[in-house]
Amino acid sequence: MSAYPECIESLIFELSKLPGIGRKSAERLAFYTIDQPETNIHRLSDALLNAKTRIKYCEICHSICEERTCQICRDHSRNKELLCVVEQARDIFALERGAIFRGLYHVLGGVISPLSGIEPDDLNIDSLKLRIEKSPEIKEVVLALNPSTEGETTSIYIGQILKSSNLKISRIAYGLPVGGELEFSDPVTLSRAIDGRRDLY
Amino acid sequence: MSAYPECIESLIFELSKLPGIGRKSAERLAFYTIDQPETNIHRLSDALLNAKTRIKYCEICHSICEERTCQICRDHSRNKELLCVVEQARDIFALERGAIFRGLYHVLGGVISPLSGIEPDDLNIDSLKLRIEKSPEIKEVVLALNPSTEGETTSIYIGQILKSSNLKISRIAYGLPVGGELEFSDPVTLSRAIDGRRDLY
Repeated sequence: MSAYPECIESLIFELSKLPGIGRKSAERLAFYTIDQPETNIHRLSDALLNAKTRIKYCEICHSICEERTCQICRDHSRNKELLCVVEQARDIFALERGAIFRGLYHVLGGVISPLSGIEPDDLNIDSLKLRIEKSPEIKEVVLALNPSTEGETTSIYIGQILKSSNLKISRIAYGLPVGGELEFSDPVTLSRAIDGRRDLY
Repeated sequence: MSAYPECIESLIFELSKLPGIGRKSAERLAFYTIDQPETNIHRLSDALLNAKTRIKYCEICHSICEERTCQICRDHSRNKELLCVVEQARDIFALERGAIFRGLYHVLGGVISPLSGIEPDDLNIDSLKLRIEKSPEIKEVVLALNPSTEGETTSIYIGQILKSSNLKISRIAYGLPVGGELEFSDPVTLSRAIDGRRDLY
């Protein structure tokens, strides 16, 4: 007899499905759970269900929100001339934390990845094209995809599609991260940093 | 505007209360959650509530179970002459995994720790005394508390209480863990290993 009671075992099983949570962490979390007051567990369980049922995807930019459109798309003070294309909604929140970019966003919902079976049609590329056609105020599209092979491919693909639109199409800079050290940087990052060098004077 | 939608924010808040889960991991888990099918989230949320509401404490040994008494206390094949005292229910499952100890257990529910305000009366020490008085079949009490200052104090305290009972009272061995290396062991462990040395012949 070394098995936990069934209700604990199934909680451990469910918890260990979460990313970054192995069997040992799941056991720890399960035992923590049964030591908590019942109201706390209700709060957590409600929060899980709430997040899943109340979350919607913005009809304009496909970011996450609780209404039909997201706060950024509804915000009239944003610069409508700039449209930043990102892979996922989380990237928007990362960019917004710095409050540097004041334009609008468009979430692709992933990147083209034939190995994982993700084709251009699986992404919000058609809706990006349509949005640009319908929004003459857009002057520049900033591609802010991750510097991975798939991100590159997707950037080039979108660049090709939007070429004929006479928009300025740019890409965020790839290079040494601030605080990073040249000595410990990988060759690909260094090569990007050299290629992307700028005139100082 | 850098805040997540409210339902995501409150899920992150609840998740980051869990042990070992910081803000970043909670964000990751929250975004994972909304990408999952609703049935999966229901399963997790039900498992949380189930574990909390169905878990009981064994009336004999105070381990966790789903009935009035635990499987080990109900198992007539166990050796009733040996009673192993542990800090928490999890310790039982750790010992049972090896299937080495075949006696019964008693869970203290913690250790004496004046700094955290845990006094002997907060632990299942009275019920241990009572259990021993009522069970003439018990011949030996094995103290298997953690080798911490509090664990030591509690072992000595229980030893004092049970002294008059004419039982054999033993303590598990503390020393080098199997696979551990002498070179990297701390002085306290080494001192325990030397003190606890046994004759080879």
